[in-house]
Amino acid sequence: MQIKTSKIYFDEQLYLESGRILEGYTLAYESYGELNSDKSNAIVVFHALTGSHHAAGKYEGDSKAGWWDPLIGDGKVLDTTKYFVICVNVLGSCFGSSGPLSETKKGRPPLRLKFPVITISDMVSAQMSVFKSLGIKKAYAVIGGSLGGMQALCVGVEYPQFTDRVIMLASTHATSPWAISFNKLAMEGIVKDKRFQDGNYKKEDFEEIPLNGFAIGRMAGHISFLSPSSMQKKFGRNYVETDGLYELFGRFQVERYMEYNGYNFAKRFDPLSYIYIIKAMNIFDASRNWDSLSDSLKNIEAKMTLISFRGDMLFMPSEMETIRDALRDLGRGERVEYYCVDSSYGHDAFLIEYDKFDFYIKKALEN
Amino acid sequence: MQIKTSKIYFDEQLYLESGRILEGYTLAYESYGELNSDKSNAIVVFHALTGSHHAAGKYEGDSKAGWWDPLIGDGKVLDTTKYFVICVNVLGSCFGSSGPLSETKKGRPPLRLKFPVITISDMVSAQMSVFKSLGIKKAYAVIGGSLGGMQALCVGVEYPQFTDRVIMLASTHATSPWAISFNKLAMEGIVKDKRFQDGNYKKEDFEEIPLNGFAIGRMAGHISFLSPSSMQKKFGRNYVETDGLYELFGRFQVERYMEYNGYNFAKRFDPLSYIYIIKAMNIFDASRNWDSLSDSLKNIEAKMTLISFRGDMLFMPSEMETIRDALRDLGRGERVEYYCVDSSYGHDAFLIEYDKFDFYIKKALEN
Repeated sequence: MQIKTSKIYFDEQLYLESGRILEGYTLAYESYGELNSDKSNAIVVFHALTGSHHAAGKYEGDSKAGWWDPLIGDGKVLDTTKYFVICVNVLGSCFGSSGPLSETKKGRPPLRLKFPVITISDMVSAQMSVFKSLGIKKAYAVIGGSLGGMQALCVGVEYPQFTDRVIMLASTHATSPWAISFNKLAMEGIVKDKRFQDGNYKKEDFEEIPLNGFAIGRMAGHISFLSPSSMQKKFGRNYVETDGLYELFGRFQVERYMEYNGYNFAKRFDPLSYIYIIKAMNIFDASRNWDSLSDSLKNIEAKMTLISFRGDMLFMPSEMETIRDALRDLGRGERVEYYCVDSSYGHDAFLIEYDKFDFYIKKALEN
Repeated sequence: MQIKTSKIYFDEQLYLESGRILEGYTLAYESYGELNSDKSNAIVVFHALTGSHHAAGKYEGDSKAGWWDPLIGDGKVLDTTKYFVICVNVLGSCFGSSGPLSETKKGRPPLRLKFPVITISDMVSAQMSVFKSLGIKKAYAVIGGSLGGMQALCVGVEYPQFTDRVIMLASTHATSPWAISFNKLAMEGIVKDKRFQDGNYKKEDFEEIPLNGFAIGRMAGHISFLSPSSMQKKFGRNYVETDGLYELFGRFQVERYMEYNGYNFAKRFDPLSYIYIIKAMNIFDASRNWDSLSDSLKNIEAKMTLISFRGDMLFMPSEMETIRDALRDLGRGERVEYYCVDSSYGHDAFLIEYDKFDFYIKKALEN
């Protein structure tokens, strides 16, 4: 499988839901496999909050593969000998696509906190420009987990002709106050940290000493990605060695895990991008521009495959069941498949327990 | 009902679990009702993490009553015409009892981060001095929720002769890594905030401008005190008016709730006390000094009443069920009553939905 990494600068305006306009924008994306002659074999993969377009394969010299590598590749479920798999870095992110820290027009300084608020619809509408530029009028399928699932649902509702197959994992029809409250810890942690300087920090400043408030906010995220039972299994009440202030208090293994992941993440992800993307997540509500959820979902033409995970503490199975039920009430019962995977990994399961759900994806693609 | 607020300075050493010794210590407590002549009618109430000895009644001029007022008073479930109800502020707290910011011996400066680590056992052992000083050799019952429930369980295991009735609500036999991870956000938020100054802050500094990291940590606590369904009911996806940075992003009602509670709390509670008490909570494991949980619980002589709440996201019902099951396996099935209350209020239910569990307490006391 070849990895093709690309970047397109669109010298055109992007109209955003907020009413604001982006004057030109860049999108970074990655693709695997070959687009066939009638351009009908594209599978669009949407990444989650902190993911990137690097969904599969290894770059030269890398030990770690892309975030959904077990699913994408020659002979895998998203079979790159058959499909052209493409993943675009979302607008607002910090891996090459336009965001608060990137130039909008050549030579113009980053907008930082003057960057407009981005929604899931905006992310999707920007990506449509990429697909259009590649001549893809219709994708074979769109698929995504978590924030990626929101984008998949958005395609189903707003671009009903774009695909016949929408696959959502570990996601929701509307971000709950519970999920918003976890994001709040990150939002508050970042903006109240003096070193954030109202967004006017130097990026390099955080490579050595990350923003504490960001690290703490990310730790909060990690709680929501796990679950009581996965933590019990993974860490129990084990102690680990420690020093510094924690010498006095002792340190639990789960605390070390949170520190390690929180601070490392805060070194490599941009805090401005983080608050823009969690804001997009918070705003997401498939019924927002419609009279009701049902009114929104009735636009969907595609076959929907919904995969939730029993222990998911961020987006509960009941939220996906709401989508299924709404579709059933619309008489679309035969066009929706719902699976609740019995996993103890919590929200993270869609990035871990592939063997518990990959056949559902396979089935959705074979249909 | 009369409220009697007292404070005792014990001019004696307190041996702590850590091996360290407190040279003299003060405990603040409150009592309601009259101790009878044979001193057999005392009910000990243990408060939770941020509670105080002010469990019931209103002080002159106050609009708000003590934290368990609906349960404590003349004719109430903890009937102060019958019982002498007493609540002691835990060691380490900041409402009058000895803690990191108080003098240990007259004239000595506060120990701050040199204050020794406190455990639930230490809190209970200190309180025993108060009961002893009042001539209470045996309490009619002990009762507490959350951290208070840990103290109640600790009495059952370590002072089996002290009472015939132990009542635990919304608590656990051992703090789970899930709960520890929520506490971690507070711990990290506080100690990494520059204004904390390694514990050498001036208390007054936070009365106007609270410690951000503490407020954020407390917000994390509030997530664990609520639940997805209680948040959905209480806040939904409602927006509220806002200004400042949040004008750009909009603000959800749940965010305002968290801010309001987080920052207000950080003005009135001491961050050093907070980290010492959450540490005591983290350390708590009823089996810690025993071969097993069973080995620990077999010390219990009292009748146990365990009340959990279905939506509790901090201490899950399954954790209380573990206690029940261990007691049953020990052949003590007839001396344990377990109730799981169907509440959507989450962990906070034990401070809210009195009418759903007060009769269980009544029953436990009538036995």
